Amino acid sequence: MSAAPPSPLAISLGDPAGIGPEVIAKCWDSRGDFNLPPFVAIGDPRSVAAVWDGPIEVIENPAHADSAFDVGLPLLQLNAGEADTPGHPSVAGAHCSLDSLEIAVGLARSGSAAAVVTGPVAKEQLYSIGFQHPGQTEFVAERCGIAAANVVMMLAGPTLRTIPVTTHLRLSEVPSALSSALIESRGRAALRGLQRNFGIPEPRLAVSGLNPHAGEGGQLGTEEVEIIEPAIAALAAEGWRVSGPHPADTMFHEAARANYDAALCMYHDQALIPIKALHFEEAVNVTLGLPIVRTAPDHGTAFDIAGQDRADPRPMAAAIRMAAENAVFRAEVP
Amino acid sequence: MSAAPPSPLAISLGDPAGIGPEVIAKCWDSRGDFNLPPFVAIGDPRSVAAVWDGPIEVIENPAHADSAFDVGLPLLQLNAGEADTPGHPSVAGAHCSLDSLEIAVGLARSGSAAAVVTGPVAKEQLYSIGFQHPGQTEFVAERCGIAAANVVMMLAGPTLRTIPVTTHLRLSEVPSALSSALIESRGRAALRGLQRNFGIPEPRLAVSGLNPHAGEGGQLGTEEVEIIEPAIAALAAEGWRVSGPHPADTMFHEAARANYDAALCMYHDQALIPIKALHFEEAVNVTLGLPIVRTAPDHGTAFDIAGQDRADPRPMAAAIRMAAENAVFRAEVP
Repeated sequence: MSAAPPSPLAISLGDPAGIGPEVIAKCWDSRGDFNLPPFVAIGDPRSVAAVWDGPIEVIENPAHADSAFDVGLPLLQLNAGEADTPGHPSVAGAHCSLDSLEIAVGLARSGSAAAVVTGPVAKEQLYSIGFQHPGQTEFVAERCGIAAANVVMMLAGPTLRTIPVTTHLRLSEVPSALSSALIESRGRAALRGLQRNFGIPEPRLAVSGLNPHAGEGGQLGTEEVEIIEPAIAALAAEGWRVSGPHPADTMFHEAARANYDAALCMYHDQALIPIKALHFEEAVNVTLGLPIVRTAPDHGTAFDIAGQDRADPRPMAAAIRMAAENAVFRAEVP
Repeated sequence: MSAAPPSPLAISLGDPAGIGPEVIAKCWDSRGDFNLPPFVAIGDPRSVAAVWDGPIEVIENPAHADSAFDVGLPLLQLNAGEADTPGHPSVAGAHCSLDSLEIAVGLARSGSAAAVVTGPVAKEQLYSIGFQHPGQTEFVAERCGIAAANVVMMLAGPTLRTIPVTTHLRLSEVPSALSSALIESRGRAALRGLQRNFGIPEPRLAVSGLNPHAGEGGQLGTEEVEIIEPAIAALAAEGWRVSGPHPADTMFHEAARANYDAALCMYHDQALIPIKALHFEEAVNVTLGLPIVRTAPDHGTAFDIAGQDRADPRPMAAAIRMAAENAVFRAEVP
């Protein structure tokens, strides 16, 4: 770390029966190799102890995380019910993962934590206890008083950042879901996020086309001319450095990536195929548009391998490291 | 080369005003570094001399290419009209590029050449002289007596091969263009091509989904369940090793790529984003389903940089090398 964040990071363990507890504990184990700043985990210590035999330092105040971090994994203990078995999610576990998320966000909102990193949750379990949001991102947005439509998911790796304009839509619904206003709004949030979270004063945004060859001047589709180009022009008129629409297939090689700080993509796979092809173990999900820093590893609960010591901690380590870096930039930007 | 192809490769120069002549001449220059077997270029020698001052060996019989290859760039001379200026395509140049393609295919059909590598052409110029095919691939198919619908484009790089089921369609037209029969037919051609051109006796094909997360069991789209899964089942019933539908975003990282020999993708960018992100300078366009071997570099005429000594010969070198390897496998497979 070039600079340490002003306070510890708050990490929700996610579903206690998933791989969250294991990868977070492994991150503490390898905190030196992974170059990680102090953090505090939030959740049921039994879910960590079930999959890891290292030292857990239960603390009651996040301010104690710094000193505890040298001794063991600092953990804010939740009053959980029955302990879960790894790989077998339960209703009690869903309550625990939701409480953990709530507390992590609260600590960041109050300034006691520099950022939030969220462990993976099981949406189906959460829905069964009345969770109303599509995912953790929307929950965090609401707790921060931000409309879900105004936060943006960025996937960030060492040499590429992508932002999907549309996310979990059927491919057939993507063309009609696109509008100039939506592209502008996502683009603006991405550009501001590059300034605030990544410390880039004049960020460059590359916007993809929707169709092959970016529509080939209208021969292979009209969305570029009718929807995407006006959005680019509007952002440029505000003074932003925006280019495109670029053919999506020639945007992501090394020389092309050198021309921009983030790529704004029209749909889920257009954004996620390149980032995961290039940076599968290091791609971090960063939520932009929030008053706090929030990152997450881009994987799920992986119940099928939970409790088997097989989970790869690198994505979680990348999410922690990026949260710390983002928090430092946030602290610097007036 | 582990083994040399049985006869020289025939390379059409493509449009004389494009970068074809330059990159082919540069390939001869670096034939040792690029590990290239003997080849013969076909076209107007003036288009090469205009951009390169190396030795050109005009030959009249492709059988002389082997011995000429040590002395200069072997070239079968076409009786061209006015010479073109690099960067300025003409009708005469279009005729020349079409004749060059015709002769290259003829040599491969007759067995005088082991394979065809095609330089980039300008489609608009070709259309202006009555060319009726969407591209060179369909022309080659017709000259081989194969219906265009039965040939398949594969993009092949050192660690990934992809085949798009649909190609130059607007994204909004992709869902309705997909059918189980089309996916089966493309899959079968891909699998046979892996056997014949790449010498893989029991090839493994990974089939992508169309929607995010491969439709998440119908939650995010029904094409996987209704169209793609039946096609996979039909291919599997024929004894082929086929897996999927896989979420497209988690198919292309290193560990995932180890599980298959080629990825069958549903649309243009799904196939081309990962191959170009990973292998931009080495991605080769291979036409499968033909009685001959045909490859091409995956770039165009690049008129904007023609004649400036700026064209990168690596894609052409990769296309020549892969044509030679494919030809060797073809010669071995009974």
